[in-house]
Amino acid sequence: MNDIDYDRLSTAELNAIHAQLLEAYEAYKRQKLSLDMSRGKPCDEQLDLSLEMLDIVGSGDVLTDRSGLDSRNYGGLDGIPEAKDLFAQLLDVSPSELIIGGASSLTMMHDTLSRAMLHGVFGSSLPWGKLPAVKFICPSPGYDRHFAICELLGIEMIAIDMLQDGPDMDQVEKLAAGDDAVKGIWCVPKYSNPDGITYSDEVVDRLARMETCAGDFRIMWDDAYTVHHLADEPDRLKPMLAACKAAGHPDRVLMFSSTSKISFPGAGVAVMAGSENNMNFIRKQLAVQTIGPDKLNQLRHVRFFKGPAHIEAHMKKHAAIIKPKFEMVLNLLETELGGKRIASWNKPNGGYFISLNIMDGCARSVVRMAAEAGVTLTKAGATFPYGHDPRDRNIRIAPTFPTLSELKTAIEILCLCVQIMSIRTFLNRRGANGAETYV
Amino acid sequence: MNDIDYDRLSTAELNAIHAQLLEAYEAYKRQKLSLDMSRGKPCDEQLDLSLEMLDIVGSGDVLTDRSGLDSRNYGGLDGIPEAKDLFAQLLDVSPSELIIGGASSLTMMHDTLSRAMLHGVFGSSLPWGKLPAVKFICPSPGYDRHFAICELLGIEMIAIDMLQDGPDMDQVEKLAAGDDAVKGIWCVPKYSNPDGITYSDEVVDRLARMETCAGDFRIMWDDAYTVHHLADEPDRLKPMLAACKAAGHPDRVLMFSSTSKISFPGAGVAVMAGSENNMNFIRKQLAVQTIGPDKLNQLRHVRFFKGPAHIEAHMKKHAAIIKPKFEMVLNLLETELGGKRIASWNKPNGGYFISLNIMDGCARSVVRMAAEAGVTLTKAGATFPYGHDPRDRNIRIAPTFPTLSELKTAIEILCLCVQIMSIRTFLNRRGANGAETYV
Repeated sequence: MNDIDYDRLSTAELNAIHAQLLEAYEAYKRQKLSLDMSRGKPCDEQLDLSLEMLDIVGSGDVLTDRSGLDSRNYGGLDGIPEAKDLFAQLLDVSPSELIIGGASSLTMMHDTLSRAMLHGVFGSSLPWGKLPAVKFICPSPGYDRHFAICELLGIEMIAIDMLQDGPDMDQVEKLAAGDDAVKGIWCVPKYSNPDGITYSDEVVDRLARMETCAGDFRIMWDDAYTVHHLADEPDRLKPMLAACKAAGHPDRVLMFSSTSKISFPGAGVAVMAGSENNMNFIRKQLAVQTIGPDKLNQLRHVRFFKGPAHIEAHMKKHAAIIKPKFEMVLNLLETELGGKRIASWNKPNGGYFISLNIMDGCARSVVRMAAEAGVTLTKAGATFPYGHDPRDRNIRIAPTFPTLSELKTAIEILCLCVQIMSIRTFLNRRGANGAETYV
Repeated sequence: MNDIDYDRLSTAELNAIHAQLLEAYEAYKRQKLSLDMSRGKPCDEQLDLSLEMLDIVGSGDVLTDRSGLDSRNYGGLDGIPEAKDLFAQLLDVSPSELIIGGASSLTMMHDTLSRAMLHGVFGSSLPWGKLPAVKFICPSPGYDRHFAICELLGIEMIAIDMLQDGPDMDQVEKLAAGDDAVKGIWCVPKYSNPDGITYSDEVVDRLARMETCAGDFRIMWDDAYTVHHLADEPDRLKPMLAACKAAGHPDRVLMFSSTSKISFPGAGVAVMAGSENNMNFIRKQLAVQTIGPDKLNQLRHVRFFKGPAHIEAHMKKHAAIIKPKFEMVLNLLETELGGKRIASWNKPNGGYFISLNIMDGCARSVVRMAAEAGVTLTKAGATFPYGHDPRDRNIRIAPTFPTLSELKTAIEILCLCVQIMSIRTFLNRRGANGAETYV
């Protein structure tokens, strides 16, 4: 059924195809499947890559860090020195510009904005929570959990478009310069969630250089997929902290990353980075929140990963497992949806997602229809602020967790649903079904 | 020098003793010691008790929890089922009344009050941060890090007295009933920090029953030392959540605990507990802050500790290590300071501290003088809100971390400083030194 522009078919032809597709869909439905593609979770095989990490900090091993601090005991507010070194290399910052956290960078981002609301950020004249309004620029589609943090904290979200090289910088610059309530922007700058886009050097520079009405504007730079390459030639992201320093705005960016999808999502190491001013400001508050993060787990990670070269090799093993999954999804999308002018999607060089855009007004129906056949997708609209996709067209595909065979079935079902809903949309537009209107 | 009431000695006799003590002090000073008794840290020998825990969740072990969830992957917002079971037994609550956190109960307490400021607690009509004032009752001396959280969040602290069976309930009841800005109270109900006091049943019941002007009053119940016994006959604390339920105030208490001083301070498991209303309210916000805590570390703890009986046996091993330290401190205090009417102290049945009260106005000078001889004590005043001990008399002794021989030296120095400052106080009072006034 390749390369058929649905809209050029006659109503009778469309009805015939619709009947065929529906029959195939109903056949799947009868299988009572249960396939989950809702979240970007590594699969078991990926988790096994780091298994040895669980054996290298045992009762017989040295348990002190390089400074001599016993990793079992209290202390070490912002991490052990060797973990700082490792992450500093990964994030292109110096060790003093780093804070190591617990297992979750999401928690560090949440806490950073909570603190901003309660106490402000470095350079704020007032806690953000004391201001009449706080607004954040949200390139969309984006990461639903970023938006959930804003929603919880009452930070107003302004959705702007993602383009092929990052956020639409004309929109970003206008918003940042025009309103002192605009306090920040969310960015997933490399292999973005869900589009898989890596920001161009120009976008990085414009973000670093732009005029902001708020003196304490912050870029929340979630570099979650910094080493998560799929292509042989990895994308290269211009180092953001250096760009901000060069532009005379050293305190503008707060960077976040973690090993969640390098080692274990449930027991990784998270990190944040930024100027020493920013880090010292946060360290003071952090000293009230904690005596220190889990240092034994930092030891495990440092001893297992050794350095950037070893992490690079490790990530190639991840890629070898998940790349076939991405390729299968892309091939199926091309086979089933290509040439019909009903869908478009990205071909990411890294990251965890494929972002599928279908006909306007169809995403929620497709997600619901897929769910009825046992395929759980990320909730439609989740990739937009307040869960509201204005065109109701974006579907986030997370190919990593299911097996290849599960994935194949799930994507086949998804493609059936997309085609069925597309045909119904065409038919409804034509009003050609008389009394029968597809919804 | 035992059993000499200093104040009954002549000025000449006091001057003579002062000279002797000063000579001994100066001799210690010349040794250029470096002894740290500032924090309640377990010693290496205690940490070794849990070493095997590091070997039981290895690459060859089952890594799923009882529900089948892979502990390496995402998920499990509030802990794995077997960890909930274990802590539920320890804290006398049901598993649904628990949330397992990361490694730090301090973080859970900080985050709970941060959330209260930003969003309120279950039943609040407004976030506490939107109110003109928020006040907390702070039984003092107490835990400095509790007070630091209040100070960071701008919660006004009202110091009230600790009596022999808990906080002065007459004061507590009056404050709680009289002012709707009074939103809570800090409690370390068992082997309190620093007094080592366990709340009596009557205190527990009065806290549970009392009238509070604020409908969303919360007891921050930091049960840090719940199994940390030193005496053969452990103190018994009346279960607080049950008492609150019985009194018709099921949502009043939020309980906190951790394994920091059971397993590893730097890599333990923390927990909070309370009514299902409270826990569900917090779970909703927690779902935005994190995808879940470190589940592998929970597995380690559950497999190592098995159940309450095993924890009890484990804590006896801790006691065997630290009890001689407590006994030595108590013996030295008795030998050096007893009968002189210059100091009093508690004899705790558990916990981590000995609380020493010396003559009014002497604590800061003694801590400074000890520091000059290389003995670091907890900062004077730290056990009171805003670091202000109104009588400047309380010194917190943390005997667990140093070796017995280090501890002996440190306490001898401390006792010298206390005696010297006491004598100076007596002499100053008498104005007997002419031009020379000891300060």
